[in-house]
Amino acid sequence: MSDKVAKRERFLSVFPGLVEDLIEVLNGYGMTPEAIEWFKKNLEYNTPGGKLNRGISVVDTYAILKGFKSTDELDNETYKKIALLGWCIELLQAYFLVADDMMDKSITRRGQPCWYRVEGVAEIAINDSFMLEAAIYVLLKKYFKGEPYYVDLLELFHDVTFQTELGQLLDLITAPEDHVDLSKFSLDKHSFIVIFKTAYYSFYLPVALAMYAAGCADEKDLKQAQDVLIPLGEYFQIQDDYLDCFGKPEDIGKIGTDIQDNKCSWVINTALKLVTPEQRKLLDENYGVKDNAKEKVCKDLFNELGIDKLYHEYEEKVAGELKEKIANVDESRGFKGEVLTIFLNKIYKRSK
Amino acid sequence: MSDKVAKRERFLSVFPGLVEDLIEVLNGYGMTPEAIEWFKKNLEYNTPGGKLNRGISVVDTYAILKGFKSTDELDNETYKKIALLGWCIELLQAYFLVADDMMDKSITRRGQPCWYRVEGVAEIAINDSFMLEAAIYVLLKKYFKGEPYYVDLLELFHDVTFQTELGQLLDLITAPEDHVDLSKFSLDKHSFIVIFKTAYYSFYLPVALAMYAAGCADEKDLKQAQDVLIPLGEYFQIQDDYLDCFGKPEDIGKIGTDIQDNKCSWVINTALKLVTPEQRKLLDENYGVKDNAKEKVCKDLFNELGIDKLYHEYEEKVAGELKEKIANVDESRGFKGEVLTIFLNKIYKRSK
Repeated sequence: MSDKVAKRERFLSVFPGLVEDLIEVLNGYGMTPEAIEWFKKNLEYNTPGGKLNRGISVVDTYAILKGFKSTDELDNETYKKIALLGWCIELLQAYFLVADDMMDKSITRRGQPCWYRVEGVAEIAINDSFMLEAAIYVLLKKYFKGEPYYVDLLELFHDVTFQTELGQLLDLITAPEDHVDLSKFSLDKHSFIVIFKTAYYSFYLPVALAMYAAGCADEKDLKQAQDVLIPLGEYFQIQDDYLDCFGKPEDIGKIGTDIQDNKCSWVINTALKLVTPEQRKLLDENYGVKDNAKEKVCKDLFNELGIDKLYHEYEEKVAGELKEKIANVDESRGFKGEVLTIFLNKIYKRSK
Repeated sequence: MSDKVAKRERFLSVFPGLVEDLIEVLNGYGMTPEAIEWFKKNLEYNTPGGKLNRGISVVDTYAILKGFKSTDELDNETYKKIALLGWCIELLQAYFLVADDMMDKSITRRGQPCWYRVEGVAEIAINDSFMLEAAIYVLLKKYFKGEPYYVDLLELFHDVTFQTELGQLLDLITAPEDHVDLSKFSLDKHSFIVIFKTAYYSFYLPVALAMYAAGCADEKDLKQAQDVLIPLGEYFQIQDDYLDCFGKPEDIGKIGTDIQDNKCSWVINTALKLVTPEQRKLLDENYGVKDNAKEKVCKDLFNELGIDKLYHEYEEKVAGELKEKIANVDESRGFKGEVLTIFLNKIYKRSK
């Protein structure tokens, strides 16, 4: 069993216990067996099916901050408690994804039908998404109420949840799937959307949670982490946008759909800055349409504009800046730049 | 200007300031003007349009607990801070209602189109409902972070939110509007649904918030309040169910639709306990259908079964029990039974 698989298995092994904790609360309230079964299915269908990178990185970061060589050195009780924070991120993500799929009218998610498309669910999925979020606070209360940083955890989840919703709002009103208006797009909006919709909860949140749990969450250190992780999250999403258009399907494991879906991606926003009026007209006519020939017109133009080269220049620039910031991290209060290096190395020059 | 109108006006006067507080946060994040405008409209369209009973009762309860004759004696700064807690309940309700209307495919709410039916909104309403909830925690952080009971407020909102969602879940899977199955109904389920979906957030939450703010929220006193307010909330909803079927439209200001909407109401659940197999067959065939003649068959049967009389017996019994509980409230730690009497008096024998 590879290291990565073993890590994933250990993280997954914590989940059934959390489901039991949550069900215990429902039992305590005298909830009917049918409704308990529904909630259990909601949790199990929507929470653990993804890559779990966000959740697992909480435990990884915690181990580094505590000076362990690897998470293997964490005893089971500690592991479970820290992994629980990771699962809270996965619950937060499940909350967003169940709703996003309804808003985007998506068909599948993680290789299975979207939850709202499961027989008998439909609009009930809205309330189910609410319950995934509420589960976070039930678990934090049960496991962290006694900790001096309990209120910090609550505020962190509140803040990041709101930030993610702000990013989602701007995305929804800037790039509705059924109405193309490229004049609404801009690189500034793209930056706001990806930082708020993705970077806070996917990059800053796992590290901040681990910092609180490890007892090294001085405000200055949280800021050091954020100053690297937010641009790193933006870089990650720009890379994602780039790969959607320029990546090989066999590498990225899917066929990119951003062009046909009218996505406010880094690629189109960068193109919009460079086009002549004639090229702009081409984009207005061909972007955001469910038509392979029109998609190809856009792709050809992106190639003509040299977006590929610009991406690699951006990647080198931002990676250099981040490496420098990390090298200058002040570790005097117990925070470690290594935490950030690991995140950067996972992303730099990835092709999938 | 009547007392009640003046009270409402003062409570309403706090709202624009809260909207400004929230918008300040978005401005601080560098959000685009278009998205800020959207969020503002979401807040204003969905939060203040109702009766505001829940919100206003926070200030009323606080004034009584603090020994004031009326809320007029509260200075503006205190009034604003306590009213803010009331507005947080209204935001919580807005969060639920925006979503409920989507789940129920409702057409209008408070005399205007449901938010999801407003031009350009549609599924974005899901994210908008999320943001209404998130606004609660932004406001609590801004105004209550320094208070010793801050974390109690957060947990109270978390708990009550989850309870309401549990009630909503049981309601949704017990009484889907498009599939009638009366064998799923029972008075026990009805009791769970109304207590969790309505009583916690509408009755217990306002009083508990006021108790924390007034500094008399000993666990024993919260329990005393809950022991009256939860059955009182159940009574309120049973009365609502009763009035939907037996109230005069000119009194209740609407035409009841519970029978046609397949609602798991106290009336049908009480009837189901009393019917002969032949009468049950009548209900199976006529309940939950959008057809006036079938509705009349149900109503006639309810009259035949004497549901009206049973309701009045229930009302007298529960009102008597609640009065006795209130008379026995232990006021030694500063809690006051008067708070509960006022709630009971608003409900007892109301016809609208």
